[in-house]
Amino acid sequence: MSSPRTLAWIGDLDGYLRIIDQTLLPTKLQYCDLKTAEEVWEAIRSLRVRGAPAIGVTAAYGVVIGTRSRDLDQTCDYLATARPTAVNLFWALERMRRLQRGSSSEEMRRRLLAEAAAIDAEDRQMCRAIGQVGAALIAEKTGVLTHCNAGALATSEYGTALAPMFLAAEEGRRFHVFVDETRPLLQGARLTAWELQQHQIPLTLICDNMAAQVMKEGRVQLVIVGADRIAANGDTANKIGTYGVAVLAQAHAIPFYVAAPSSTFDLSLASGDAIPIEQRAAEEITHGFGRQTAPDGVQVYNPAFDVTPARLIAGIITEKGLIQPVNADSIRTLLQ
Amino acid sequence: MSSPRTLAWIGDLDGYLRIIDQTLLPTKLQYCDLKTAEEVWEAIRSLRVRGAPAIGVTAAYGVVIGTRSRDLDQTCDYLATARPTAVNLFWALERMRRLQRGSSSEEMRRRLLAEAAAIDAEDRQMCRAIGQVGAALIAEKTGVLTHCNAGALATSEYGTALAPMFLAAEEGRRFHVFVDETRPLLQGARLTAWELQQHQIPLTLICDNMAAQVMKEGRVQLVIVGADRIAANGDTANKIGTYGVAVLAQAHAIPFYVAAPSSTFDLSLASGDAIPIEQRAAEEITHGFGRQTAPDGVQVYNPAFDVTPARLIAGIITEKGLIQPVNADSIRTLLQ
Repeated sequence: MSSPRTLAWIGDLDGYLRIIDQTLLPTKLQYCDLKTAEEVWEAIRSLRVRGAPAIGVTAAYGVVIGTRSRDLDQTCDYLATARPTAVNLFWALERMRRLQRGSSSEEMRRRLLAEAAAIDAEDRQMCRAIGQVGAALIAEKTGVLTHCNAGALATSEYGTALAPMFLAAEEGRRFHVFVDETRPLLQGARLTAWELQQHQIPLTLICDNMAAQVMKEGRVQLVIVGADRIAANGDTANKIGTYGVAVLAQAHAIPFYVAAPSSTFDLSLASGDAIPIEQRAAEEITHGFGRQTAPDGVQVYNPAFDVTPARLIAGIITEKGLIQPVNADSIRTLLQ
Repeated sequence: MSSPRTLAWIGDLDGYLRIIDQTLLPTKLQYCDLKTAEEVWEAIRSLRVRGAPAIGVTAAYGVVIGTRSRDLDQTCDYLATARPTAVNLFWALERMRRLQRGSSSEEMRRRLLAEAAAIDAEDRQMCRAIGQVGAALIAEKTGVLTHCNAGALATSEYGTALAPMFLAAEEGRRFHVFVDETRPLLQGARLTAWELQQHQIPLTLICDNMAAQVMKEGRVQLVIVGADRIAANGDTANKIGTYGVAVLAQAHAIPFYVAAPSSTFDLSLASGDAIPIEQRAAEEITHGFGRQTAPDGVQVYNPAFDVTPARLIAGIITEKGLIQPVNADSIRTLLQ
């Protein structure tokens, strides 16, 4: 991996979490040290750290930090309010919450740190395994389209949707990636383009509304995106715009894949209809880049995610293998 | 019309063209006076004036201005290079070029001014007629989605795609418009949202990648967009992203209409494959809002237009009536 570390625990039990401040990329690579639960909460809320797996790992370390001044349940409850859609956040907090309490406060905090480090390490292994499963889909000279950022910056390392690309490149295959800039927050332009550059993978940046055109021109043979939550039937919540890309891919007979660790599945939800969708501030659209680009008082709709129905998904790439076709049975079978 | 005038000729034969500088909207309503052919060329190129019909009218007045220092053919040749896709530009310049030369230079320039004023007046009448034809499609409580700006700012007055909305509102019907912001230059956010506000028509601004989601949620029953050039078979070039909207509309069984004056048809082109597509600067995507939003050296694809095949178009709304179904026969019949 040639990319800088998305997040790293610095020090021992009294240490802190160092993250790349992703709101400043790609023009500035700056780290941000999180030393209180409030700083962790704010970093997740304001997308300094983002991407479902990275949010989970950050929250786990956040519990270690937060339990210095709060009890465990309070800390978990508080951190769970930072963002409402990414299931990895709740999954990581639940895992921390269920730890057997230690006989002393220090012993408990030692266990919490060990657990957070385990979640972190597992995330790295999972991403690499996803990459190995997904790399097989990327043949020589393939055009791959991706939306948002599900790369190394979205995880501890390697990423989910980008992991197959990093692995295919390591295996020596040449291919080209079309990167949707991904309005409103431009994670594609700012983060995915930057990560692919770090790995010397050829890419072309496009506006979201150009995806249909590059598909029509025959430049794309494969779509891979990440996921924030996947229901039991395979319906997948991911960054707003993903559903549109899936519809366009189907119309152009291009297979559409989701790459995600198994922790992204929420089997308590029968279908995507039950996934809550975070609504974000209007200013992300009207004042996105330090300049007002819409008239005063305009009404805005700004859902952070949409849900792609399972019928539009050719397969789900997980660390346990490829789920294909995508339905409740195939998902249950692989996850068991 | 409550909107300020998009363009107006000020003075007599030695007058000049006053335009709204659309690059400054919606935060600043500022006029720009064009007194040389170079200023006219630059205003078209840099999108201070934009929209196929408005470009045609501007170019026609530009001929009056340019022939003070150049001959007629030179002036027309020069202005034709300002932008390559909009057929109205060439159509208006051809119409000026074919004027019978006067016996004196002043007589010729008087004829040129009269012709430019005629193109301007015809454009106003055409837009109103398009509005009357299209308003019938907008029932009470309809959700209408539009892309880019084909409103009053894109024409002398009233617009093409927005004209049916203005007329339906004048007729007292209540409906809601979803406005794609339209990257990279945000004509939807900056111009369409502003125009609809001026007319007190309720609207919701969305990012381009949210169109699929609002369609899926059942909020849209009708799409109306403008056109920059239409081939003999009905294939339609319009702002990049239009083709994607058309594919999404079809996938959601929503009728997709194009509104355009008959001067937008280019019957010399059998299909959309022959329409040249302007490629614009990478900086529109990488530095769109006064701030760099992509890494240095990134490769960018930035076509200004795409072509929507006739099979995805439910009808074409023209000043002569509604073309439906859309094919070479129905187009030829209506235009004759």
